[in-house]
Amino acid sequence: MMKSHATLQLKYIGINTSKSAIIYMREDCHICRSEGFVAETRVQVTINNRSIIATVNTTELASDLLKPHEASLSRHAWDLLAANVGDEISISHPAPLDSLSYIRSKLYGNELKTAEINQIIDDVVSGQLSDIHITMFLAASSGNRLNKKETQDLTQAMVQTGERLKWPSQCIVDKHCVGGLPGNRTTLIVVPIVTAFGLMMPKTSSRAITSPAGTADTMEVFAPVNLDVKAMQKVVSQENGCIVWGGAVSLSPADDLLIRVERSMDLDSEGQMVASILSKKIAAGATHIIIDMPIGPTAKVRSIAQADILKNYLESIAAQFSIKLRVVFTNGTQPVGRGIGPALEAKDVWAVLSCDPAAPQDLRDRALTLAGHILEFSPNVQPGCGKETAESLLNNGHALKKFQAICKAQGGLFDIPSAPYTKTIVAKVKGKVASIDNRLLARLAKLAGAPKSKSAGIELLTPLNKLVEKGEPLFIVHAETKGELSYALTFHQQRPNIIHIEEAI
Amino acid sequence: MMKSHATLQLKYIGINTSKSAIIYMREDCHICRSEGFVAETRVQVTINNRSIIATVNTTELASDLLKPHEASLSRHAWDLLAANVGDEISISHPAPLDSLSYIRSKLYGNELKTAEINQIIDDVVSGQLSDIHITMFLAASSGNRLNKKETQDLTQAMVQTGERLKWPSQCIVDKHCVGGLPGNRTTLIVVPIVTAFGLMMPKTSSRAITSPAGTADTMEVFAPVNLDVKAMQKVVSQENGCIVWGGAVSLSPADDLLIRVERSMDLDSEGQMVASILSKKIAAGATHIIIDMPIGPTAKVRSIAQADILKNYLESIAAQFSIKLRVVFTNGTQPVGRGIGPALEAKDVWAVLSCDPAAPQDLRDRALTLAGHILEFSPNVQPGCGKETAESLLNNGHALKKFQAICKAQGGLFDIPSAPYTKTIVAKVKGKVASIDNRLLARLAKLAGAPKSKSAGIELLTPLNKLVEKGEPLFIVHAETKGELSYALTFHQQRPNIIHIEEAI
Repeated sequence: MMKSHATLQLKYIGINTSKSAIIYMREDCHICRSEGFVAETRVQVTINNRSIIATVNTTELASDLLKPHEASLSRHAWDLLAANVGDEISISHPAPLDSLSYIRSKLYGNELKTAEINQIIDDVVSGQLSDIHITMFLAASSGNRLNKKETQDLTQAMVQTGERLKWPSQCIVDKHCVGGLPGNRTTLIVVPIVTAFGLMMPKTSSRAITSPAGTADTMEVFAPVNLDVKAMQKVVSQENGCIVWGGAVSLSPADDLLIRVERSMDLDSEGQMVASILSKKIAAGATHIIIDMPIGPTAKVRSIAQADILKNYLESIAAQFSIKLRVVFTNGTQPVGRGIGPALEAKDVWAVLSCDPAAPQDLRDRALTLAGHILEFSPNVQPGCGKETAESLLNNGHALKKFQAICKAQGGLFDIPSAPYTKTIVAKVKGKVASIDNRLLARLAKLAGAPKSKSAGIELLTPLNKLVEKGEPLFIVHAETKGELSYALTFHQQRPNIIHIEEAI
Repeated sequence: MMKSHATLQLKYIGINTSKSAIIYMREDCHICRSEGFVAETRVQVTINNRSIIATVNTTELASDLLKPHEASLSRHAWDLLAANVGDEISISHPAPLDSLSYIRSKLYGNELKTAEINQIIDDVVSGQLSDIHITMFLAASSGNRLNKKETQDLTQAMVQTGERLKWPSQCIVDKHCVGGLPGNRTTLIVVPIVTAFGLMMPKTSSRAITSPAGTADTMEVFAPVNLDVKAMQKVVSQENGCIVWGGAVSLSPADDLLIRVERSMDLDSEGQMVASILSKKIAAGATHIIIDMPIGPTAKVRSIAQADILKNYLESIAAQFSIKLRVVFTNGTQPVGRGIGPALEAKDVWAVLSCDPAAPQDLRDRALTLAGHILEFSPNVQPGCGKETAESLLNNGHALKKFQAICKAQGGLFDIPSAPYTKTIVAKVKGKVASIDNRLLARLAKLAGAPKSKSAGIELLTPLNKLVEKGEPLFIVHAETKGELSYALTFHQQRPNIIHIEEAI
């Protein structure tokens, strides 16, 4: 039978490899034998007229995972092909990829042409390029080897591969934080302030990737965030703004695929970072953008010099897309507010919005600064008067009312939950809080259950430079189960110096 | 129970991912949940006191592959850990790798220090670095970004990580072909000639990786090649030489791991190539090396200019290790001999060694040239007289006798098998053989079953520039099964121009 000679039947074995397309085949199946396919071969997999490139993993003779006529796919490959159990798939040698020669050319120091960058990004999104190829591209672009024209082309290519939102206003404001600072949850305060003023701010936010909470995770404490474009447009038409999860909308899907590999590489290239930030904002329809750039030794941007380069880069590429962009340098030496984790951050936000005198003043002040810069995009606000305007919108309760209205429009306005298990960590010596390791603090919050357990996380009681007595509370670990609490505490015992206290003499 | 809290029990599911260390864990197992491990997280896996770094693939709730307390490993990870079914493994966050910051530094254009290169290579061999990290390193080294000092350090580091053979002679000769030319099977002729002369040549060769036959595959037609160091030393002490598979001996294991990723990258960096070649030779104990460098449009080295750069690089690094090295440029425009595939190549070799007048003269001549250069390493052979000396050793039957003795010492001297199924491909027009696509020809031989089916492959009847009549045989496809033959022929129908004939007017 000629047909079965070239095909295998799909079985589901349910392995998730993140975004790697893997095909599982028996090492002794007729296709592996005749084509010489072994583990790691790149092959073209076709169902009807849908086709992807996947990497072969073989199953051994001794394994009963697959029968001789069967194959399986990783979750990602399964989804890309919209596969069904029992589908007949054919497997063949893939044609050589032009994009791979462009990437090699870039590695050899040549400038990439617009069409070449488009091809690379198309092949990333359609799964033609393996992780190894994507790594080659990111490595070739690192060390500032992407010039401004290439960065602009990359941004454009990334915008083109996804959806692009349209809004009924000429001025769509947005903000973005370069990241690396736990608890920096200003969006939930900024959006109600500027929409209360009358600007349109349809905000798409991310969930936590490596952190204990993303803006979308925190917003979800108050209201649903998994809105599709249509639902999102309805909220915005009613309230001028929203705070939803960007993942439900396919904005710059190439960015998600590149960031995934960059995370494994633990590498940020300036060109890549600029294209990543701007492609998402352009796809979201933004025309005026404020970039919050925290600077600090454990933040993503570690020096003013590095911040200046990135600022210049962002401004000049944004200008190419006729976008008004302003970068605001902020303090990145310590977490913002008191809470780290969705519900604990939500409490901080609520305290600021309701003008609770006990609200964390650093979060309030930072949100007002950013909101002020956004308000100054409006012709009705004088330069230098934005923060003042923002403050009055907060103090007169308009921002709180707007936030409640947005939550309701998104289908919520829930109460903030509290964790049933807590443990207070106290100072072992008397002295001054000399440093706070943001990364370890974030890890501790995650071990306690954040962001999946909404009320889990860390409540930080001692900012930098505070003088503490021996035995004075430093922070409280919150957890939803006893196991998670003890898990986090065990980790803390091994690293007791997350908050370093300089002993008083 | 505190113990089970941090451990899972090993189940064998038999997935081969080549050299990637993968751990399969249920997405809902207690460790994934509490540590936040998801598909693609890098984790440290420990059994007793053995530890590796592996990448997580998760199994979904709906999958019955693993029970909640179970985990599995890819074949490579299983072997690295010497794991057994039922072993208790513990999984934790890996410590940050210094080598990763060295690689990032190299990406940013900094020179790597000796200790840094050592650390990178150590981490490659012990499986600490993922494919993405290895790709970063190779990309950072490409485009000639490794200087000579770094190449020397890399070579040294690669030698250090494996075995290093010792021989009872001050002069150990070796040869290496830079590759890309099917049928270039001179080793099986060169070794008997130079060992018959009295030089010591303990040759380790590779099996086919992407080609239809490696030297070890062809030698295996005559005699066993899977000899360990002890057996190899016995053969050499008796016959002055051997031709064995290098994979049975762990020479420069880092090279195998790097080459695997380079193949996926489809990239050769000069520094990497030089370190790869020399580290294997130094580890094999060579003191005098001839490099056969075929130059041609479908060979690895495509121009004299490229060959000159590589030659200079090889010579200067070899000198740093006090190795005498000579590069011989050879014709790389077409396959050597008539056979492509283990048994067909073995027939060519046997015809040359037994001075059959019908033997392929190009193979004979090339082997004599290379053997001549090696013989000139001896103080007893005048410069320029090597080839002549080699020829007399071939013509007087000493080389053949030596080859038979080596085969017997290795445990063989088998008859060469013939394939039961053949198909002759004829010229469709009258004209001159204008070009031969080496890569497509190699692919055709592989589709016919080579190298796994020893007697499968291609018998090439028409060298470049030969005038052929319409209907005259161009080449014969050999296969061990009807299915494989028809498979190869189907491929040929789709690409009828593997041998391009310029029509006579």
